[in-house]
Amino acid sequence: MKLYERCANDIAELIRNNTLRPGDRLPSVREASAARGVSRSTVFQAYYLLETRGLIEARSRSGYYVKVHRLPVKFSAPEDSTPACVSRDVDIGHLVFDLLGLAGRRDFVPLGSAFLSPSLCPLTRLARHLWTEMRDFDPWRLIEDLAPGNEALRRNLVLRYMTDGIAVNPAEIVLTNGAMEALNLCLRAVTRPGDIVAVESPTFYGALQAIERLHLRAVEVATAPDRGIDINALAAALEQHRVAACWLMPNFQNPLGSLMPEDRKKALVELLASKEIPLIEDDVYGELYFTEKKPPPAKAFDTQGLVMHCGSFSKSLAPGYRVGWVAGGRFAKKIEQLRLMYTISPAIPSEAAIAAYLDQGSYDRHLRRMRQALTGYQAIAIDAVQEHFPHGTLMALPKGGYFLWIEMPSAVDALQLQTLACKRGISLAPGPLFSSDRRFRQCLRLNYGHGGDPRFVPALRAVGELAKLVMDESRGVAGGSGAPPQQDRTIRPAA
Amino acid sequence: MKLYERCANDIAELIRNNTLRPGDRLPSVREASAARGVSRSTVFQAYYLLETRGLIEARSRSGYYVKVHRLPVKFSAPEDSTPACVSRDVDIGHLVFDLLGLAGRRDFVPLGSAFLSPSLCPLTRLARHLWTEMRDFDPWRLIEDLAPGNEALRRNLVLRYMTDGIAVNPAEIVLTNGAMEALNLCLRAVTRPGDIVAVESPTFYGALQAIERLHLRAVEVATAPDRGIDINALAAALEQHRVAACWLMPNFQNPLGSLMPEDRKKALVELLASKEIPLIEDDVYGELYFTEKKPPPAKAFDTQGLVMHCGSFSKSLAPGYRVGWVAGGRFAKKIEQLRLMYTISPAIPSEAAIAAYLDQGSYDRHLRRMRQALTGYQAIAIDAVQEHFPHGTLMALPKGGYFLWIEMPSAVDALQLQTLACKRGISLAPGPLFSSDRRFRQCLRLNYGHGGDPRFVPALRAVGELAKLVMDESRGVAGGSGAPPQQDRTIRPAA
Repeated sequence: MKLYERCANDIAELIRNNTLRPGDRLPSVREASAARGVSRSTVFQAYYLLETRGLIEARSRSGYYVKVHRLPVKFSAPEDSTPACVSRDVDIGHLVFDLLGLAGRRDFVPLGSAFLSPSLCPLTRLARHLWTEMRDFDPWRLIEDLAPGNEALRRNLVLRYMTDGIAVNPAEIVLTNGAMEALNLCLRAVTRPGDIVAVESPTFYGALQAIERLHLRAVEVATAPDRGIDINALAAALEQHRVAACWLMPNFQNPLGSLMPEDRKKALVELLASKEIPLIEDDVYGELYFTEKKPPPAKAFDTQGLVMHCGSFSKSLAPGYRVGWVAGGRFAKKIEQLRLMYTISPAIPSEAAIAAYLDQGSYDRHLRRMRQALTGYQAIAIDAVQEHFPHGTLMALPKGGYFLWIEMPSAVDALQLQTLACKRGISLAPGPLFSSDRRFRQCLRLNYGHGGDPRFVPALRAVGELAKLVMDESRGVAGGSGAPPQQDRTIRPAA
Repeated sequence: MKLYERCANDIAELIRNNTLRPGDRLPSVREASAARGVSRSTVFQAYYLLETRGLIEARSRSGYYVKVHRLPVKFSAPEDSTPACVSRDVDIGHLVFDLLGLAGRRDFVPLGSAFLSPSLCPLTRLARHLWTEMRDFDPWRLIEDLAPGNEALRRNLVLRYMTDGIAVNPAEIVLTNGAMEALNLCLRAVTRPGDIVAVESPTFYGALQAIERLHLRAVEVATAPDRGIDINALAAALEQHRVAACWLMPNFQNPLGSLMPEDRKKALVELLASKEIPLIEDDVYGELYFTEKKPPPAKAFDTQGLVMHCGSFSKSLAPGYRVGWVAGGRFAKKIEQLRLMYTISPAIPSEAAIAAYLDQGSYDRHLRRMRQALTGYQAIAIDAVQEHFPHGTLMALPKGGYFLWIEMPSAVDALQLQTLACKRGISLAPGPLFSSDRRFRQCLRLNYGHGGDPRFVPALRAVGELAKLVMDESRGVAGGSGAPPQQDRTIRPAA
């Protein structure tokens, strides 16, 4: 770590433990330089870094101050489990494809995108690994590596699990074309058409689409933005339905950003084990934590081999390389066979380059940089939402990932907002994308992974203003009809 | 084309049109040099090339001779359509996974493999393209290229179709993780569980597995090693069953190696158009033709957008890069959406490197070299089978690809043969892999794509000897029980 980074971290710690409070003036560059015995440029760099991370702000002609965050109102878990606990056929196709269509357009500000800014990733170094690995690649390995897949990469993954205190057998690791394929294969491995799958509410649209495509039915279970899925509600759903599998995101859930506490994860795994129900664990954001320690996946508590833990390098290292994996527990063999029949293998150059990168040992350093950037982006996003969105807008404060789930006043229709934002060159992911019956109409998932984009804050401001507009218009109409669309609310803030 | 290649081609033509006959002595190098007015080294190179291609042979101290091929007995189309024309559930899983497990083992001679020898491909040049393309790749393209996919690559594909006289709209091209994904997506795009799909008999096990996995049913239609699927039999099957789609390989069918004549392809497309039945066309071996002209795909005759033409670079350029495509006709949008939900995209570095290779314009030169090598390997394989396999073994003479389908005397059980060969370090693909009810018990698909491997001919000899052994033993037993397993024969040689 460089000197200015250490210096910035010291100050960040003082802010975190409230020694420096919001609004406090920091020592001037000259003072700090003298006090710490470092050069002025080091102090400058440190302050600049803290500014980027959203922790301090420069006020012109006056110096640096600890930034005032109006503390966001947190959601609580819903008091009553509001998703109607019935299994449903799913159909959210068009909303999703519209969104994906915009994701690739560089003239759009990607607030609705599911992708992180690729500029955070070490793309040139990966490219160099592509060349050095493939220039004299043993041709035979182009066949040999198809199954079970690049050995060095699988070994690295097992070592990373081990470092996290999780015992995973190398034979359990199946490499896939990104986590999307891993999740799809897992779902197929443990279900047959007509089966019921339990998911969070709201949930990742990819899960809903996979369920639709495999002719399965979804049961949505109440989930709180701060603590994740409600274990009691899940237990009740398991009593009521013959659930064939659960598809959940205990770490930094998409779209909520929720993180399940460890004891909840343990209770979840034990509940499912008692009924022999497999858990498909989507953990693609697990490395992007802002907490002190890396949160363990539910897999860490699995003693029965029932948890299929799905990860990916797409969000954290190598977007577009399409390499993910699953530690498939007792289903690993089945999953691998399905992959052989479907795509045969991930791209062998991609696997080889990532394996070489991991071998070099700089992945963790890269992840630290990335988390630092995202922490800052989150602060920027929270600030902008608080400043520009309608009064009464609520949001959770995710401890990782790059999504912010916000709930606007019920008069705001997110689908209408999306249409308006689209005309201004801004993509949005409206709440109805995340349930099979289009609830969460006043919610948005905001991607702050592009927080370094100069268009980011202006776009948030524009959306906030549009939301106010929609709200005013809607209230005019609702006042006339006397029917405010309250019945759509499914997650209520605690009183 | 170089002078020696032209020279070799002239001689090859003389052999082909029977001016030079098997056993004829060629002019000496000196004579030919004088007669053609070219240098001796040019003649040497031409003779060497012809030898590689299996057309002539050097006899020590005596000169060059046109090679004596005992002409292989060709199959004819079955007189009576023998696959029981019923739709079936499919289950061939274990046979296939056993085979795939061996494909990656370098201590095995891969006669049963579905893969070509990767050493035929320009791997170092592709690696260089990986580096030059990705080292300063516009990061935004890592998102932009996800859908509809690398523009340069799609443009190159459209141009290649155009060169072949086929009009394909760029929007019709969907890039996929190899042809396997393309085929699977097509099948899913046009079927629902319970639907019936018509396939060739025998057919590629990947098709049978996909049908099984999607809970579909297969109708197998009589197919001749020289002319492909029997159109009348197909018409009858379509009368008898509500067929939702056909999955066929008009060019160099796997496992038969059969090539449908153009008029048959046209008739096929017209028959299906008259009933609005979509055709999934697997054309992964189409570039590996030994004929004068590249055979057109069925897609060339499609006027309704009902043909989904699937291709791949895995067999002809970049094994392990996992890039294929489908020209999806009227189903293209649906196919692309399915891909977005399943794997999102092929690996972007793989796409970029292949696009750069195609842009350079040397793909066709590479393909010529590859076809030349495969022609020679085929000759070697045919020779070895004729010399070492039991009397009465039949085989077709494929005009492309790298599979030889052989039918041994009915007393030989290919599954038993496979077990024995496996113990000798040789993989085999036995006939029962290629049907849903394990017919073709006395058949084998032999891969001659590794014909440059010094272990290749010895392995064929070993298998031939094992086959004789099995036959002798079986005849002893059959003689005792009085029940020769004749009823398994489903393709009969013409009288």
